[in-house]
Amino acid sequence: MSRFSLRTAFPRTPNPLSQAAAGRHARGLPLWDLAETNPTRVGLPPPDVDLGALPGPFHYAPEPFGLPAARASVAAHLSRQGTRVDAAHVVLSASTSEAYGWLLKLLCDPGDNVLVPAPGYPLVDVLARLEAVQTRSYRLPAVHGFGLDAGLVEAAVDARTRAVVVVNPGNPTGHFLHEDELHALADVCARHGLALLCDEVFSGFAWDEEAGRVTSVAGRRLPCLTFSLSGLSKVAGLPGLKLAWLHVGGPAHARDEALARLEDVADAALSVGTPVQLALPALLEHAPRFQQALMERVRGNRERLLQARPADAAWDVVPAHGGWSALLRIPHHPGEEATCLRLLEEGVRVQPGYFYDFGGGAYLVLSLLPTPEVFTAALAPLVRVLSPSAGR
Amino acid sequence: MSRFSLRTAFPRTPNPLSQAAAGRHARGLPLWDLAETNPTRVGLPPPDVDLGALPGPFHYAPEPFGLPAARASVAAHLSRQGTRVDAAHVVLSASTSEAYGWLLKLLCDPGDNVLVPAPGYPLVDVLARLEAVQTRSYRLPAVHGFGLDAGLVEAAVDARTRAVVVVNPGNPTGHFLHEDELHALADVCARHGLALLCDEVFSGFAWDEEAGRVTSVAGRRLPCLTFSLSGLSKVAGLPGLKLAWLHVGGPAHARDEALARLEDVADAALSVGTPVQLALPALLEHAPRFQQALMERVRGNRERLLQARPADAAWDVVPAHGGWSALLRIPHHPGEEATCLRLLEEGVRVQPGYFYDFGGGAYLVLSLLPTPEVFTAALAPLVRVLSPSAGR
Ligand SMILES: Cc1ncc(COP(=O)(O)O)c(C=O)c1O
Ligand SMILES: Cc1ncc(COP(=O)(O)O)c(C=O)c1O
Repeated sequence: MSRFSLRTAFPRTPNPLSQAAAGRHARGLPLWDLAETNPTRVGLPPPDVDLGALPGPFHYAPEPFGLPAARASVAAHLSRQGTRVDAAHVVLSASTSEAYGWLLKLLCDPGDNVLVPAPGYPLVDVLARLEAVQTRSYRLPAVHGFGLDAGLVEAAVDARTRAVVVVNPGNPTGHFLHEDELHALADVCARHGLALLCDEVFSGFAWDEEAGRVTSVAGRRLPCLTFSLSGLSKVAGLPGLKLAWLHVGGPAHARDEALARLEDVADAALSVGTPVQLALPALLEHAPRFQQALMERVRGNRERLLQARPADAAWDVVPAHGGWSALLRIPHHPGEEATCLRLLEEGVRVQPGYFYDFGGGAYLVLSLLPTPEVFTAALAPLVRVLSPSAGR
Repeated sequence: MSRFSLRTAFPRTPNPLSQAAAGRHARGLPLWDLAETNPTRVGLPPPDVDLGALPGPFHYAPEPFGLPAARASVAAHLSRQGTRVDAAHVVLSASTSEAYGWLLKLLCDPGDNVLVPAPGYPLVDVLARLEAVQTRSYRLPAVHGFGLDAGLVEAAVDARTRAVVVVNPGNPTGHFLHEDELHALADVCARHGLALLCDEVFSGFAWDEEAGRVTSVAGRRLPCLTFSLSGLSKVAGLPGLKLAWLHVGGPAHARDEALARLEDVADAALSVGTPVQLALPALLEHAPRFQQALMERVRGNRERLLQARPADAAWDVVPAHGGWSALLRIPHHPGEEATCLRLLEEGVRVQPGYFYDFGGGAYLVLSLLPTPEVFTAALAPLVRVLSPSAGR
């Protein structure tokens, strides 16, 4: 049984006037529309500003879920990951962050809560707070390489829990979800009437092959309502273009109710620009090239990091399978903050584990994106500061 | 005294690490940044998709309030309306609707309320509901030509009221706010600690001159926190490009606190695309040409409507001063819905007054945007259906 928020329970009976207008339209009868308020549809002059070779970006079609061609290209992109995905279940938004906001509105009334992974990137906490929604965290145990333990998720559920957020692969842990973990989790969700929100922004960035790895939940037959989130920001490295998507799946009845309510939410936002929607098929074609270049960069920097580590080092590179960062386990003394401050004195910025709520152990998070020059230059001071003698 | 929401009371002390990094930066020292996760800043290949002649739309600078040059061009645009406006008080968003959502988050916790005009376009009701905020309406009395009565606003205030929304000019009434109304209203807001939200999307579309008319509250010295909202959607007729703005004004302390909190809200959204920000100066230069063409269209259609009205008609065109629509007062019998349905049978769509909560009298709302051909073609059936004999 899926529960939705009161705030999205908008009345949905079409009024007699829109029914009558739709009837005329269905019978192919003409209409002089004096309810037309779209300024791009009444023959006024378009700007002579060159916004590009894009076909007609100035004709605006207010489609809550996005232009059909753009949604179809997302469905094709998702289908390439294995499971066939229907464009009717794809919703465009300006960013994954916005999609999170919509789902929080859809699923939660004020005071309800969603479960978020710890360690994890502290994004949902801020977004939830702005939606007057609480977060409760469930631990990803370090002993399992930060894999998901459905028992710990279930233990965090309370009467007001409405959804579980999973980040796949984890940021910054780089651990992918596996089939057995997913099925145990979906079972917990189904038993408690929770929706499953899968943040898959990094799932195209796997460094290796693994048996039983889950790349996307989109298009799978799971017993709970599921949402898969991703977008151009990570998939094509284009955060400035403001286009993301979410796929709605799960039991047909819950899925269709979710889509109907999301339509009202998306209609109140209408937040995706027309030019980027028109360019989307080409941008998704570019994505594999970007991903390949990024993976080379990430693999190279990770190799440099492993090479630079002295055999007797008191710190370790935590094993991981994907994503854009490396996780270093460091000694408890002098600990995360002191180490980061020492590194800053040497001109190297890294992130302390506490930004991500590791809740045990001391960690540093390194981005693997910088150019080889920057990354290599940073390694010598890093190794020096992390060596035991530096602590004396 | 201005009140802000609990949900936007984020802690604001910079952590020691960002302080140390800022210190290094201030001293001009180099930094090898292994916290860099922006994929557009690390020399990876940009797409060869032609998104236009725009300079570098793929380099992404995550500025919560928008790129400085874009904010400066909005400040210049607002300053042209009379009062000098500071770019530091301008915030970009993807749409006016999104800006409303941000302000509802900034000012209201769940269960708080904002006052909205009736009659009015039912936009804030939906947006407020999605923010778990209530709306209470205040009447714009028909006897005053739908002008604002600060006494009626004050009568609607209760203990949980946080803001008053004014739409200037009213949609669909086309009535502008006047100096005396504004000052009385600002006084009510100041006395009750309410913010004033001025929706100015139609304020560039005045049909005539009027003494004491208020075009914008941006840059004025008012005794309450004020927000002026507008955007490309109406100002330049470009709803598909997704760029709007809000200006924050009022007593310096409240204004600065509002800006500090809005920065967290905007930072969680980062919703305005880079290409449209880069194109903004050119788009705002195009705006006057669009507005002139639109005004010619609106004036011509209004003239056609007035010409088509028989001298002895039982209906009237309500006097108005601006906007994109015409308001018709029609006989109580057969009333709004029956008249709209009869018109649909004749192939003409208009909107009934009840969409806008007129709360007394029977009205029709006509868009003045359609081409002269469509508008003229619709007039004959309109006059026929509205003539008394048609009711028999
Ligand atoms: C796991 C995760 N999800 C989502 C996002 C935000 O994506 P978007 O730019 O589409 O809002 C981030 C940003 O770093 C992230 O790390
Ligand atoms: C009075 C008023 N304000 C705001 C809007 C929405 O503007 P935007 O497209 O920027 O969200 C509308 C849309 O019709 C409107 O009538």
